[in-house]
Amino acid sequence: MENFVEYIENTKENTLNELFEFLKIPSISSEIEHKHDVRDAAYWLVDNLIKVGLNNTRLIETQGHPLVYAEWLEAGPDAKTILIYGHYDVQPVDPIELWESDPFKPFIKNGKVVARGSADDKGQVFVHIKAVEALMKTDGKLPVNIKFIIEGEEEAAFSHIDEFIEKNPDLLKCDAVVISDTEWFANNVPSICYGLRGISYFEIEVEGPNRDLHSGTFGGAIDNPIQVLAWMINQMKDKYGRITIPGFYDDVLELTQEERDNFLKLPYNHIEYIQDLSIGDTNGEFGFTTLERVWARPSFDLNGIKGGYIGDGQKTVLPSRASAKFSFRLVPNQESTDITEKVLSYIKKLAPPTVKVKVSALGSANPVLVKMHSTAIEACVDSFKQAFEKDVVFMREGGSIPVVETFTKVLKAPVVLMGLGLPDDNIHSPNESFSVENFHKGILASALFFDKYSKI
Amino acid sequence: MENFVEYIENTKENTLNELFEFLKIPSISSEIEHKHDVRDAAYWLVDNLIKVGLNNTRLIETQGHPLVYAEWLEAGPDAKTILIYGHYDVQPVDPIELWESDPFKPFIKNGKVVARGSADDKGQVFVHIKAVEALMKTDGKLPVNIKFIIEGEEEAAFSHIDEFIEKNPDLLKCDAVVISDTEWFANNVPSICYGLRGISYFEIEVEGPNRDLHSGTFGGAIDNPIQVLAWMINQMKDKYGRITIPGFYDDVLELTQEERDNFLKLPYNHIEYIQDLSIGDTNGEFGFTTLERVWARPSFDLNGIKGGYIGDGQKTVLPSRASAKFSFRLVPNQESTDITEKVLSYIKKLAPPTVKVKVSALGSANPVLVKMHSTAIEACVDSFKQAFEKDVVFMREGGSIPVVETFTKVLKAPVVLMGLGLPDDNIHSPNESFSVENFHKGILASALFFDKYSKI
Repeated sequence: MENFVEYIENTKENTLNELFEFLKIPSISSEIEHKHDVRDAAYWLVDNLIKVGLNNTRLIETQGHPLVYAEWLEAGPDAKTILIYGHYDVQPVDPIELWESDPFKPFIKNGKVVARGSADDKGQVFVHIKAVEALMKTDGKLPVNIKFIIEGEEEAAFSHIDEFIEKNPDLLKCDAVVISDTEWFANNVPSICYGLRGISYFEIEVEGPNRDLHSGTFGGAIDNPIQVLAWMINQMKDKYGRITIPGFYDDVLELTQEERDNFLKLPYNHIEYIQDLSIGDTNGEFGFTTLERVWARPSFDLNGIKGGYIGDGQKTVLPSRASAKFSFRLVPNQESTDITEKVLSYIKKLAPPTVKVKVSALGSANPVLVKMHSTAIEACVDSFKQAFEKDVVFMREGGSIPVVETFTKVLKAPVVLMGLGLPDDNIHSPNESFSVENFHKGILASALFFDKYSKI
Repeated sequence: MENFVEYIENTKENTLNELFEFLKIPSISSEIEHKHDVRDAAYWLVDNLIKVGLNNTRLIETQGHPLVYAEWLEAGPDAKTILIYGHYDVQPVDPIELWESDPFKPFIKNGKVVARGSADDKGQVFVHIKAVEALMKTDGKLPVNIKFIIEGEEEAAFSHIDEFIEKNPDLLKCDAVVISDTEWFANNVPSICYGLRGISYFEIEVEGPNRDLHSGTFGGAIDNPIQVLAWMINQMKDKYGRITIPGFYDDVLELTQEERDNFLKLPYNHIEYIQDLSIGDTNGEFGFTTLERVWARPSFDLNGIKGGYIGDGQKTVLPSRASAKFSFRLVPNQESTDITEKVLSYIKKLAPPTVKVKVSALGSANPVLVKMHSTAIEACVDSFKQAFEKDVVFMREGGSIPVVETFTKVLKAPVVLMGLGLPDDNIHSPNESFSVENFHKGILASALFFDKYSKI
């Protein structure tokens, strides 16, 4: 009888055709005119989850786009349970003119499936569905209990999944959460991400005089809101790149020597890095490498600023107000609520008596660090090694995936970031693509993971 | 026989009606749809200059709106010659909804003529035309030679008068230039302005990475253009409010003790000043009063800034670029070309090697200081004293009137800033107005000035 490895190899063509069908649905969650397309993608998932043999498959309505749930619990109460998370919604396609062809007419080019959503995240979530199929078709059963929860609002402004997780811990109860929605460090370098930064995001407004003034009549006698704002921005970091907010580093978990050694082994090329960005050099917190700075050290960035006259030519205005948006990336074990308080309190102390300063927190997410040494991670490493026939590296990511922290906090289960994306996948950009090899070998890796994890 | 003082008194009603006719012409020079209205205002002036007895009255075409010229040179080659400058164009009326009535239907309210252009500058320039009339109608001649040059582009983006002055020094040759286009220090405080600040205006762009980046993926490893710009802005002034550009103060003429004493005698009220602006306090160069700071010390202001995302909510962008507009107000004897060079050179030295900095000079004007002790100023003081029956104060202004420097430089004649405006005239704002008393007494002061200046 055919085993699941052979099944996956023998059904490659069909599997790719099915992914194409999924990718043809323009499920752009942030655009109201695609509301029905998003729903169609959810129904497509329901059909396919049923087809591979999952039970209790259903749409779960939210105030926005629906969640899709499915399960197979027949491995029994003593077997391990894996929860698989992913999302079926996609980013908008603008600027459409930079696409080589229709974003929703997938095709293969240079070994990659080109289409919106191919890597982020339809291709990656479909991998696990096809892994379930391979095991069910060959063994008639799965070695572990499996639950799927797939959302349609990951790329939208508001998402209801965190609320759903918090209200349904029993439904989602599991031993490990698997998420394939991250990238490898480089092509041909299978990578497991074990840390994500958190974020605290703010906006600030500095109001000086109650009206725009003539800079000739008043210039030199009163504080200019743009200059006050620039001064405040400058008080947030010292010349060694350290954030100067009192207590900011109190809970920062220092990198272990093992992590630092691991990072140094990664194929980071400084010249390529700065050439790709066209910058003169990197800059950041002294005493840390670039990868340490973006993955494991907190950072402070201005995301936007405006004030006064910004049109053509000259206007001799001393503006009434200036505003900015800024954010901090946080690392374990910083708590975003604690940092938010410290930032607000520091800014209130900084605010000069000459002006009015309004500052508010716009949102936050906690950082996440998954234990590098766990049975789930070990099973993932082994599966990647066997499927891709390459050594596996550990990495972190500088961005935030808020749902990871919700899973960690509510379900108290380890999260395995079994990403299959590549750095040149152009996610969120024109000509998004997903490696055909990573797609097929990813299905194998997923099936191997179910198998290996069940035995550990 | 009626003397000119009586003539002015007896013709007040008619004089006001004629001003109303002038104010009804919507000569907004910056709006193309008012091109013909601007020309109509020029023709109205030509008619009125001829009517009061001036010679060689004519429109002088420029590449924009025409100049109006007129002269009366029959006082003879040994008599003094006065050149009177003013402008017949007006500011736009936006926001129109804040006007109490049609900006071009003048009416009297609380002793003031309310209409666009009433104070700036139609009312003030008409004062001198009516002074000529009063002398011609009563004496049949003027005690001095008079030339008028009245432009229609003072409120427009481009003006051709400076070029005209430079090309026609003989036509405009004179012993003194009289300009009524400034304000008194306060109501009932006849003021002669003897100094104006200059300006050097710049724009700067800081380019970091060649594209907008995700602040999670890159934050902490590379310089953020907004933060670099904020840092550069912060390097321009020290904590005592002094500009830190090398050599910036080299040519600054210190205030004399007489000037400082004069300023201290002016009715400046600190509490009213900060309450009017709704600011917590003033701030500026240490060691100087507010009036000294805005009139006689150079200043540095940000006029505008932009970069990154400034819409609603959060966007976790590390922007590719940030830009700003900034300017320096200059005081005698700073040269704007010298300051422009020093600023550009300082910024080039400041620019960090991590980013690309582009900076360019957008425009400049030299400061002006008229000798406080001269025969023309003395005659003006005496005329104001007699006409308004009040003591006269000397003041400076913080803004720039570039044409003043051109007159000074090309004609080598003193400029008398015989302003008749008041601080509550709302020039450039809705409900612009001009004091009826200042209008009538201004005509008397102008006629007295011609008389007194001829005899000194």
